[in-house]
Amino acid sequence: MKPGIETCLTPELLHQFDLEGKVVVIIDVLRATTCMLAAFMKEVDHLVALADLEECREMKKCGYLIAGERNGEKIEGFDLGNSPLEYMEYDLKDKKIAITTTNGTQAINSSSMSEERIIASFLNKWAIGNYCISKGKSVVLICSGWKGRINLEDSLLAGALSEIMSSDFNFEDDTTRFVHSYYQKNRFNFLEEMNNASHTKRLSRLNQGGDLEFCVSEDLTEIVPFLEGNRIRV
Amino acid sequence: MKPGIETCLTPELLHQFDLEGKVVVIIDVLRATTCMLAAFMKEVDHLVALADLEECREMKKCGYLIAGERNGEKIEGFDLGNSPLEYMEYDLKDKKIAITTTNGTQAINSSSMSEERIIASFLNKWAIGNYCISKGKSVVLICSGWKGRINLEDSLLAGALSEIMSSDFNFEDDTTRFVHSYYQKNRFNFLEEMNNASHTKRLSRLNQGGDLEFCVSEDLTEIVPFLEGNRIRV
Repeated sequence: MKPGIETCLTPELLHQFDLEGKVVVIIDVLRATTCMLAAFMKEVDHLVALADLEECREMKKCGYLIAGERNGEKIEGFDLGNSPLEYMEYDLKDKKIAITTTNGTQAINSSSMSEERIIASFLNKWAIGNYCISKGKSVVLICSGWKGRINLEDSLLAGALSEIMSSDFNFEDDTTRFVHSYYQKNRFNFLEEMNNASHTKRLSRLNQGGDLEFCVSEDLTEIVPFLEGNRIRV
Repeated sequence: MKPGIETCLTPELLHQFDLEGKVVVIIDVLRATTCMLAAFMKEVDHLVALADLEECREMKKCGYLIAGERNGEKIEGFDLGNSPLEYMEYDLKDKKIAITTTNGTQAINSSSMSEERIIASFLNKWAIGNYCISKGKSVVLICSGWKGRINLEDSLLAGALSEIMSSDFNFEDDTTRFVHSYYQKNRFNFLEEMNNASHTKRLSRLNQGGDLEFCVSEDLTEIVPFLEGNRIRV
């Protein structure tokens, strides 16, 4: 009997899922989990994910770089925003980062009852898929969405992950079939599809359009970050 | 400026939508809204949708046929279940029906703050699309789902409706783009796609597989049922 994949399209539906004994995959393509992968590609030591902005700000005193956004904008006094390209230009080797974002850190915190949580982006999708296959346990893909609403970019990555795992897993719910079918239709026109997404429109309003191409770059790294409490390591 | 379409994939996300001044389209393909259309094709006078099973049973005393299911099964002592083919074989001319179902009547009741609600199925999808175009107001498509979870069949009809309306409306949210793309991929293989849906597996367990073909039959009628309170008329 193959293990199963289920997909949660927004943290507001997370109560419908039993996470016990499963691998939980956290997805926030634009841009929290993409930033986290960028940080690990730049050899950061670890990150701490915090839902509360002021708690994040306090971490500065403990030697952390502080990072985050609210409504897509960088926070006054913070070292880093939520642009992965900014992370790629910063010297992060052996540093530690405290990060707070609108959606991604909320998804991380609301799935804290799970024993095994890993961080996915397009940058490491192949590595995530293969990690899940090697574990052989059932998987729940959690899309962060945008303020509780479903978004295209996280759905597309969930579909891409289900495609990588499709031979080794059963699709346990209709949502996984839905994102898989959606990915199959759009796998060769990511950027065009992303340009229609509501989040992209928000990003381009904020003059951060350059991030988009980076956020849908596929398989740049084999890093699989995992969570211990709210700490993210490789 | 064109009116907009938004899509709600489960009643559990309905709080995210502002329904005021909009046309609300209720979708429950398997099988509540399909049964309702079958009843109107058989010239029923009106239906009353009730979330509570015992309240529905009481309506028998008021001269109503009583109809409904729980977990896909007909209720003991009820005149009709939730099989549209059963409705098509019943003499319903000028009768009145009180109906309660697992998901469809819940979606109807939880959208009661809206002024204009109409009932959609594949049987009347073209009529629903054209009605919305003729009204020229923004539209919210509400999928009933299955016990709060997203399902394929309602998502597919939402996508079909957004396709019919695509020239005259803007897609206001990512979910509408998502269901539209999903419909475009699967428009010529409804039945194959439906056979993968979790709900179909439930139906075939209950030996009611014959309903499926009927539930995805397209454009058999031009009837557009609408709700007044919990009463459904044409």
